[in-house]
Amino acid sequence: MKLATLKGPGRDGRLVVVSADLMRAVEVPRIAPTLQAALDDWAAVEPALRQAADRLEQGELGREDLLPFDPAAAAAPLPRAYQFADGSAYLNHVALVRRARGAELPAELLDDPLMYQGASDGFLGATEPIAVADEAFGIDLEAEVAVITDDVPMGNSPEAALAHVKLVMLLNDVSLRRLIPNELAKGFGFFQGKPRSACSPVAVTPDGLGDAWREGRLHGALRSTINGMELGHPDAGAEMQFDFGRLIAHAARTRPLAAGTIVGSGTVSNHDRSVGSSCLAEVRTIETIEHGKATTAFLKFGDRVRIEMLDDRGRSIFGAIDQEVVRHQERRRP
Amino acid sequence: MKLATLKGPGRDGRLVVVSADLMRAVEVPRIAPTLQAALDDWAAVEPALRQAADRLEQGELGREDLLPFDPAAAAAPLPRAYQFADGSAYLNHVALVRRARGAELPAELLDDPLMYQGASDGFLGATEPIAVADEAFGIDLEAEVAVITDDVPMGNSPEAALAHVKLVMLLNDVSLRRLIPNELAKGFGFFQGKPRSACSPVAVTPDGLGDAWREGRLHGALRSTINGMELGHPDAGAEMQFDFGRLIAHAARTRPLAAGTIVGSGTVSNHDRSVGSSCLAEVRTIETIEHGKATTAFLKFGDRVRIEMLDDRGRSIFGAIDQEVVRHQERRRP
Repeated sequence: MKLATLKGPGRDGRLVVVSADLMRAVEVPRIAPTLQAALDDWAAVEPALRQAADRLEQGELGREDLLPFDPAAAAAPLPRAYQFADGSAYLNHVALVRRARGAELPAELLDDPLMYQGASDGFLGATEPIAVADEAFGIDLEAEVAVITDDVPMGNSPEAALAHVKLVMLLNDVSLRRLIPNELAKGFGFFQGKPRSACSPVAVTPDGLGDAWREGRLHGALRSTINGMELGHPDAGAEMQFDFGRLIAHAARTRPLAAGTIVGSGTVSNHDRSVGSSCLAEVRTIETIEHGKATTAFLKFGDRVRIEMLDDRGRSIFGAIDQEVVRHQERRRP
Repeated sequence: MKLATLKGPGRDGRLVVVSADLMRAVEVPRIAPTLQAALDDWAAVEPALRQAADRLEQGELGREDLLPFDPAAAAAPLPRAYQFADGSAYLNHVALVRRARGAELPAELLDDPLMYQGASDGFLGATEPIAVADEAFGIDLEAEVAVITDDVPMGNSPEAALAHVKLVMLLNDVSLRRLIPNELAKGFGFFQGKPRSACSPVAVTPDGLGDAWREGRLHGALRSTINGMELGHPDAGAEMQFDFGRLIAHAARTRPLAAGTIVGSGTVSNHDRSVGSSCLAEVRTIETIEHGKATTAFLKFGDRVRIEMLDDRGRSIFGAIDQEVVRHQERRRP
């Protein structure tokens, strides 16, 4: 089952069920007005949503109920969420970044996930621009996989936690690289260096992913391009050190997680350098290791970033994140 | 004007206007069902709320509309919020903690606020227990002041940001001290070390605080007790290095903040040691500096923490945070 949120009229938009081929959608106001409302009461709401999805797939809905699905009309599946816990589960990425500054990967990171509390008060829709005040901030993408949970009790085991994954989506964890070193040096983690992230137009239930969802991971090539040029297509499954069950259990060790919590995988990265990268920081890190200095620039105003995953028949699973980088314009008062 | 949220029936409870003396309340479902709904549309909703508050104060409401206000029936003003940005604006606290480990206060912290992204997916009501799995986690309180904003545009100046403070409240930023060093050493900030925080029963508009709200700070002694013994009563105003306008502007430098964002002051702390502390970590730090080792224990199961601020006539402004520390019991499946 595929779900999306159309923009407006309110801040949380309107929940729609989307066809497997991403071509058609149906509004479901009598089942749940918003995705958050559905997640708040998932066990009760899910059967009705699946029924609507079945009718949509089988062509049983009248033409008056059908909408063409337009990714540009989609907000993020959760336009605002109560929590974003972002892991960093691809240790190749972590090891590269550390190696570029001459540090080893600490052994404990093989067993203890890296995770930070991210901003969740607003997520960008898949085609909304990345608005930044200054290119000098070092604008970068980070192509990730993310899941959305229902309520997770405190102290859940990784196995129990995995059962709370209700939806899977793609995420562009926009990062401002030149703000991050000072911020991390202060010791309290990211804040200004992590502005709003963007989400794929559609979120998919684990069963809707078939064999691509197994062992708590999404398997498949996550393709990122900048201005149409491929940045990378690493596989999101095999080298994810901690599956989503482990990541969720880590987040829930000392507190419950509320329904609608988004848990991110961190930048997808593979040891095989021929598959490329999912962020420019990693490209620059490899350049530094190989040639002594980074030559690839960060994103500039006017650049376009695209992140997508295709199934084994070449069809888009989640729709594409497709964003332009623009200069933030302060609204003038009249 | 004083606002609170009564528990149930839904996750977000029901908004009530509370009398200045905290004795009576009135439900306002036709104005706004929840505090989040009010904040989403504050400019339109505020006048009607103020009208209800005036009628409540002036005894114009019929007995059938009045409720006795019971802090134990109150959830947090926002039982779940889209963002919690917690500053650390009392540099005396920061300097003490660093001095205990032999480090100086970096000069840049005088100009650049410390802030972390905190968990906002659930806040405890004022009398809800602090449930922790293990006393060995090093359970501590942190008595703070916090504000709730409406929508804050990206790049707001501190002066403009201050105008977005709609409500002020007290907060117990519960901390698990023995989990924090490892977590901060990983470089991504707090996660497991900061479980759910608790809020005062009532949130107050800045004008409702009179002269205690000035220069973007709440002035007055913030009194913390443990099992009835005073831990401290430092003044929350004078030594707050960054006012709430500065803290909000820091949070909004690279992204807008959604309505309902909670911004915390950090642990209230004064240079004058005779006024005591707002957390046990600071007490232990002073013991370490003065005697070479910490002797005060962290909180134990059964301990009771109380945080309150009285006005100059000895009346509680926000109601009291009054929590018992309990052992977290995993719910067994039947």
